Order: sequence, then C-alpha cells, then structure tokens
Amino acid sequence: MSVEDDLIARYFKPIATNPGALGLTDDAAVLRGGNDDLVVTTDAIVEGVHFRSSDPPETVAKKALRVNLSDLAAKGATPAGFVLTLALREPDERWLSAFASGLAEDAITFDCPLLGGDTVGTPGPLTMSITAFGRAPVGGMILRSRAQPGDRIVVSGTIGDAALGLAILSGKVTVDAAAIRESLIDRYRVPQPRIPLAEAVRHYARAAMDVSDGLAGDLAKLCIASGVSAIIDAAAVPLSEAARGLIEQGQTSFVSAVSGGDDYEVLCTVAKDRWDDFARAARNVGVVVTPIGEIIAGNAAPKWLDTKGEDVALPRLSYSHF
Amino acid sequence: MSVEDDLIARYFKPIATNPGALGLTDDAAVLRGGNDDLVVTTDAIVEGVHFRSSDPPETVAKKALRVNLSDLAAKGATPAGFVLTLALREPDERWLSAFASGLAEDAITFDCPLLGGDTVGTPGPLTMSITAFGRAPVGGMILRSRAQPGDRIVVSGTIGDAALGLAILSGKVTVDAAAIRESLIDRYRVPQPRIPLAEAVRHYARAAMDVSDGLAGDLAKLCIASGVSAIIDAAAVPLSEAARGLIEQGQTSFVSAVSGGDDYEVLCTVAKDRWDDFARAARNVGVVVTPIGEIIAGNAAPKWLDTKGEDVALPRLSYSHF
Repeated sequence: MSVEDDLIARYFKPIATNPGALGLTDDAAVLRGGNDDLVVTTDAIVEGVHFRSSDPPETVAKKALRVNLSDLAAKGATPAGFVLTLALREPDERWLSAFASGLAEDAITFDCPLLGGDTVGTPGPLTMSITAFGRAPVGGMILRSRAQPGDRIVVSGTIGDAALGLAILSGKVTVDAAAIRESLIDRYRVPQPRIPLAEAVRHYARAAMDVSDGLAGDLAKLCIASGVSAIIDAAAVPLSEAARGLIEQGQTSFVSAVSGGDDYEVLCTVAKDRWDDFARAARNVGVVVTPIGEIIAGNAAPKWLDTKGEDVALPRLSYSHF
Repeated sequence: MSVEDDLIARYFKPIATNPGALGLTDDAAVLRGGNDDLVVTTDAIVEGVHFRSSDPPETVAKKALRVNLSDLAAKGATPAGFVLTLALREPDERWLSAFASGLAEDAITFDCPLLGGDTVGTPGPLTMSITAFGRAPVGGMILRSRAQPGDRIVVSGTIGDAALGLAILSGKVTVDAAAIRESLIDRYRVPQPRIPLAEAVRHYARAAMDVSDGLAGDLAKLCIASGVSAIIDAAAVPLSEAARGLIEQGQTSFVSAVSGGDDYEVLCTVAKDRWDDFARAARNVGVVVTPIGEIIAGNAAPKWLDTKGEDVALPRLSYSHF
C-alpha cells in the first residue's frame, strides 16, 4: 500500500460512510440518479491566503467544506456529498488526523458525506479543493440573476465579523475581552453556512448568492447579473455588538465591514408579497434575516445611503485574489 | 469587476457553453437530473510534481482534464461535464489564454463541458484540481472490486511510454530520433483517455480501473479490492516499438515500464465467455486491447512470469507521492 493509500485508509475512509463513496477504494464515486437537479459548486483554499498556517487543522477542514456548503445554501440546495483534493507538503499524521476529524464532524452536522478525493504531494502551501453537491427540484436552483425591481434585499446573520477576526489574527485590530476576540476569530475560521435557510431560500427568494467577498461587492455582482440596481439603507445592515463597538472605537469602519470578505451569509432578494412567508420560514429555522434595502431598475452601482440620506462612499468594493 | 472575475470572463466563459454552467456567472452549476447514476471523480495536479513548469499550458490543461476522463472511461461512464479549481501565482495572460484554449479543445473533443470553477491566488506552484462527472445506467458503474477467478486481464494501448517521456524530459533517457522522442513526450504530456472504450467496458468488463500509478501496482490494487490474485504473462504486456527499442538498448527495463506511472490506459477483467464480444466492441471503436493474463483465486500478490515461466521480480510496485 502506498503512503497516500495508507493515509486515505486511515483518516478518510472512516468518514466516507455513504455507499456511493465505495469506501474510497475505487476510482470514482456514485451519486444516485433521481428526479432532482444536482447543484455543483467548487472552491479552493490555500494556506497563507484563505487560512493561516497557525489555524487549527479542524477549523481548516471545516472552512474548506463550509465555504462550499454556503454556496449550496444560497442556491436553495440540500447537501448531497462532496469530494476533496488535498495537496500536502508531507504527511503530518497529527495534522491529518485532526483535519479528518473536523471534516467528519461537519459531514455529519450537515449531512454531507465524503464521497471521494485525491491526495497529492506539493512543495508549496497546503492547498485543498472541495467540490460539493446539493439537490434541488428540477429548475429549482435559485440564481443570482433573477432579482427584480421592488424586491426586498435581505441578508442573513451579521456582516463584517469574519474580516474583524482576520484583522485580530493579523494584529491590525486589538480586542481585550477574550470572549469577544475568540468569537470574532471563530467567525473567520469556522463560517456558519446557512444550510437551515436553504429551503426558505428555495421557496421564497427570487435571486440569491452567498456573501464571500464582501457584502458591497457581492451585492454589486448580483445586481449586474440581474440587470438591476439597488438602494441600501446602510444603517439597516446587521452588525454584531462587537463590530459596532470596534467601529465606535475607530478600530474599523462600516466600509471595512461591508467590503471585507469571509462572511458566508446569504444575500437574497424577495418579492414584497413573499417577505412575510420568508421571514416566518427563517424564524422557524432560527436564522436571523434582515432587510437592508430594495432592488430598483437601472444599471447604476448600488446606492448606499446613511441615515441622513447621503451617499456612503465605498472605495474598495471587494477582495481580489491578485 | 475583480481581476479573477475578469480572467474567468475572458478565458473560461467562452468555453462554458453548456446551459448548466450558467455562463460561469453564478455560484454553482446545474447537472440535470435523470435516470442515470452520476459517476464522480476528482484529481489534482501540481506543477513540478505532475507536470513540469516548461510543459506547454495547452498540454497542462489537457492532462488535468484527461486524467479524470481516464477514470470515467475505466468506470464505463460517459462524460457529462467538469469543474475546475485553479491556484495561480499571478495572472499570466499568455499562459491562461493557452491553457483555456487547450481546455476548450478537449471539452469539445470529449463532449465534456466546463460547468464551473474557482480561481485563487497562491504563493506556491500552480495547482489545479478537476472534478469530472460521467453518466452510467443505475448500478452500471464498473468497480475495481468485481474481478473473479478465470477472468481475462486486459489492458488497452501500450504501457510504459509516458514514463519514458518523462525520463526523456528529465534527461535520464536519450532518444536521437526526433519523431520517437516527441511521441514519447507526448504520451507523458497528453494522455489518451479511453473514452471510446467506455461503452465496451460497461457492457463486457467485470472489473476495471485506469492505469495511472504503474500497471504492476494498479493490478495489485485491483486484485486486493476484488479479493483475488492474478498470473501475468509478462511477454504479453503491450509495449510500443519505441519502448522495446529502449529496453533492448538497456536505457530502460521492462520493470520500469510496468511500474512507471502516467499510462492512463484501461485495465479490466473480462469473463472468458465475454471476451470475443469485448474484443469486437474495442475493435469497432479503434482501441487496441491486449489480454495479458488471468485472474486466479487467492490473495497472493499477482505473479508475473517470463517466457520461461520464471518469476519477474517487481521491486518498486508503484509511484508514491511522498
């Protein structure tokens, strides 16, 4: 048995319990056919770029999977499984064992089994890529391109916390209270994919995407894809107490909160007459959703207004990888 | 538009023509449901490990896709599409444009459209991961674990050429004749996935896998997965004229040929009473298949016999990434 087969057998086979995974002993996995569409999303994360070398391996595993689950949730899809490719410098058993245990926990939490993968050597940074599958009724996936004037613009959870977590880890922001510091770091390391909200999104949202590159930039993308514009009430954007406090202290700004990345919240638009149903469905699954503005006709960049009705300038629209 | 969105729009959108790709403007792709099973395979390739920095970007793209298509072929599946993650140091426009054009060519050749992807920055070597999808009738995917005593062991094409191509590129083997040199290098850089053979495999093979880590090691894996052993007639293993010549010159050996990697041929077992049908079907699609031995009961390592009936020693069973 080669080293990589041995690693796979030891750390990943125990979590590949779905019959379609064939115990990771074959060259491919099987996803049973059915009447549903299969929603497919893929995301790669790189050490030093999307996570830090010092991040615990459990949280690296969870982040790798969750950034994909976040896409599925925003598309209104129910998780069906995932495959993983892992490029490793050397097989560090302790790291791998912790990584696999984080992955196993999330596979169970989100009912999204490991179906297959590939482990390769690299002289470079740890790099992993996950392709995740979800199911949605035929034609039922929610696109980002269907927003219509008059739709309410809604966002789940709170915005800007993950960017603050990263800023704390990089020493750019200081938080004395340990509980607050840890909770912000946690938002960066372990996103909360809004899988419980997927069904409500599928039933009631017109357009949706997840917020991964900053709310402002991602909203602009949704508007471009839909051929519409938007007016945002900046004061309505949901911020955590921690974020509000740090803005007041001048350690960060509202603009940073809405242009930082890694939120992994759902951004969607809901027709006005479906808002009550959507809000009720979200409440039923315990996900906070907040209306922050309205889709309008036109192709201007979304307008962000402060409480005085004046423009909020957003110079840096979203994170770029290069 | 961010740099990566711009890259995607310029180089990859034109080749994402399948409706399920949604023009690469959404967060996910759609694979239409149906009565078939979906066969899923994923492979990563890393610069300096699986391909060389000096390899032409077109061939890097083709290799990245083809190693996955080879898996689909060996599983008896018909290609349905793929997603790609690409970790790049910097957006080198010339490289990307050539890479995308190689990918586009193959997407058409193999009727396997690009459905989605993710482009990220990395400080390390170029790394790409492809997840490919194929369709097979429900329960129709061919496993590596179904070989039975009495089955003929069959391999497609010729074995060992790709390893020689790599040896030439690394200066370990010298070939004066340019045409032969180029054809061996080509076998390394641009594998020929046996997609035309997929239907014959699905109809007539009992067990199958692709040969990617060396015939000897991969056959051993198939035997372990099936709980059987094998006897191989070493002289029957199909070698190209070029490989035979280099073995005669002492520049390489039979053992290297069957333990080197990157062949991407189909290794399968066929019940004796299905052999004629399988051979005819292979001939009809123009793929050469060669019987090289027989599955026997037991769990000993496969026995390789030379023309005198003596054991061929195979010290290095397969390539390890670490």
